[in-house]
Amino acid sequence: MRAFAEMNIDKLYESIESKGHVCIGLDTCKDYIPDSERKKANDDADAVLSFNKAVIDASFDIAACFKVQIAYYEELGIRGMSVYAQTLKYIRDKGCLVIADIKRGDIADTALRYAKAHFSGDFESDFVTLNPYMGMDSIEPWLKEAKSLGKGAFVLMRTSNPGRKDIESLIVSNNIEQLNINKVQDTNQKYVYNIIGEKISSLTDEYKGRCGYNIFGVVVGCTEREEAAFIRHTYPHLFFLIPGYGTQGGGAQDAALLLNNGNGGVVNASRSIITAWQKKDGAERANYSFAAEAAREAAVKMRDEILKSCKIGV
Amino acid sequence: MRAFAEMNIDKLYESIESKGHVCIGLDTCKDYIPDSERKKANDDADAVLSFNKAVIDASFDIAACFKVQIAYYEELGIRGMSVYAQTLKYIRDKGCLVIADIKRGDIADTALRYAKAHFSGDFESDFVTLNPYMGMDSIEPWLKEAKSLGKGAFVLMRTSNPGRKDIESLIVSNNIEQLNINKVQDTNQKYVYNIIGEKISSLTDEYKGRCGYNIFGVVVGCTEREEAAFIRHTYPHLFFLIPGYGTQGGGAQDAALLLNNGNGGVVNASRSIITAWQKKDGAERANYSFAAEAAREAAVKMRDEILKSCKIGV
Repeated sequence: MRAFAEMNIDKLYESIESKGHVCIGLDTCKDYIPDSERKKANDDADAVLSFNKAVIDASFDIAACFKVQIAYYEELGIRGMSVYAQTLKYIRDKGCLVIADIKRGDIADTALRYAKAHFSGDFESDFVTLNPYMGMDSIEPWLKEAKSLGKGAFVLMRTSNPGRKDIESLIVSNNIEQLNINKVQDTNQKYVYNIIGEKISSLTDEYKGRCGYNIFGVVVGCTEREEAAFIRHTYPHLFFLIPGYGTQGGGAQDAALLLNNGNGGVVNASRSIITAWQKKDGAERANYSFAAEAAREAAVKMRDEILKSCKIGV
Repeated sequence: MRAFAEMNIDKLYESIESKGHVCIGLDTCKDYIPDSERKKANDDADAVLSFNKAVIDASFDIAACFKVQIAYYEELGIRGMSVYAQTLKYIRDKGCLVIADIKRGDIADTALRYAKAHFSGDFESDFVTLNPYMGMDSIEPWLKEAKSLGKGAFVLMRTSNPGRKDIESLIVSNNIEQLNINKVQDTNQKYVYNIIGEKISSLTDEYKGRCGYNIFGVVVGCTEREEAAFIRHTYPHLFFLIPGYGTQGGGAQDAALLLNNGNGGVVNASRSIITAWQKKDGAERANYSFAAEAAREAAVKMRDEILKSCKIGV
């Protein structure tokens, strides 16, 4: 009998049970690093790595997981990619889970290359983010690779940026015979993002973890409160990666609406955590540990706010 | 008076006038490399670089441009990213244009990081491919950066893979009051991909090259002949990056339907060109130059077929 890899979705579920819902986003830009440390570093890439390590050291016990936005590392070229790889490894060596925020999406053969790139080798991560625009044949190669390695993914569904209205929130009418002007006003209407939700929801049981969630979840921003409860209700087996907290305007109550009995989602915050040090007294004399302590403090505050909203009910 | 950068869209237009429509795709997988050469190389990444250089040397005078699919390099980790950077540089040093097939797409701040990553530094390219799922605020930062640097992009519109039907070809009805069952049957119907086309088409004149095309074009596969003429007619100012030729089933006539007076599009072929050597007599004794000559021959054949279809009319 073949032993299947332990599923990361179950590890993430358990991590949330013990550490809360905060996903710390390491979208580390050189401008977020204290000046004194940046001046001492060999180059910006080195400074980014040292900063990341300090934040990880200070917060790994209270973060459900980390998310690393690869764009910030690609910007620094080959050196940046090396720091990206080292950051992923540092998080995983601490026994923490990491989401590679890569938003890749491409046709079959190419998707398989990407899957190998980000589920193994230098850039190995535990979860990735995927862009579904090209259709399910751009997702399926990842799914097979993920299942055999215990990995997971979050497919973009309804994101937190204003531009989400351009494509994601278009009303679709492929089943036009079922539509009329009255119906389109009610909840029978479907958006492009619902098509994504339905496709990822309809994965068979072989793609489910013991926790009851599919190994592939979706990205749902906490920036539109009025739709949140309905989305959560519609996709009970989908785990949510929830951006939009803090800088983008979402709050603890918005995030809590997207959770399921206090689990089923991680809430990402990047800038509001890793730049928290800039708003503190003494910021002008900040070093890595000052910045890392401020990040931990911001993450703990966010964790407690979300936990409180879950308890109160919303 | 500020001197603006010369626009790559104009260079591409001129390149097509003198060299035809072929874009050679360097989706170079280790399995595409002759065994004898692979065995001699230090590692797969080195073999990929040598293979790419041989193909570029043999074909740069007959290729309108090259396209490099980054997934194949990401798969090889840090070493692969270095070979990716060296491949781009080798093409550009030959005076040729290169499209970085990266299909990135992310929100504003992140999009700007990506734009800096792929329009300058180690990974500098002339054009990129972009994924519009998250909306126009994921495209705009690229646009500003492109304009100031003379760069360009191709936004995914209607791709060549079967999965294009899942999202790209959904019928949208945000203007539901204008729709009824009859109208949806005629050409007034809009697909998700038309929304992309409209948005990129509606860029103001400051984003146009001297050749009359917008600096951002779109990706339109040549795999659905019945829609091709209509799409070409609908977006006269959009330059098309055309995948789907060869292995994916599109032919010269299909591609020619997407051109505009013999310009306005480049037709990409990857596998059918770079693995052409495998079908030749003597393939078992192939080396880099054998493979590169076969690639040139396949590219010339494709170029001539497309030119012939343009002349005949279709």
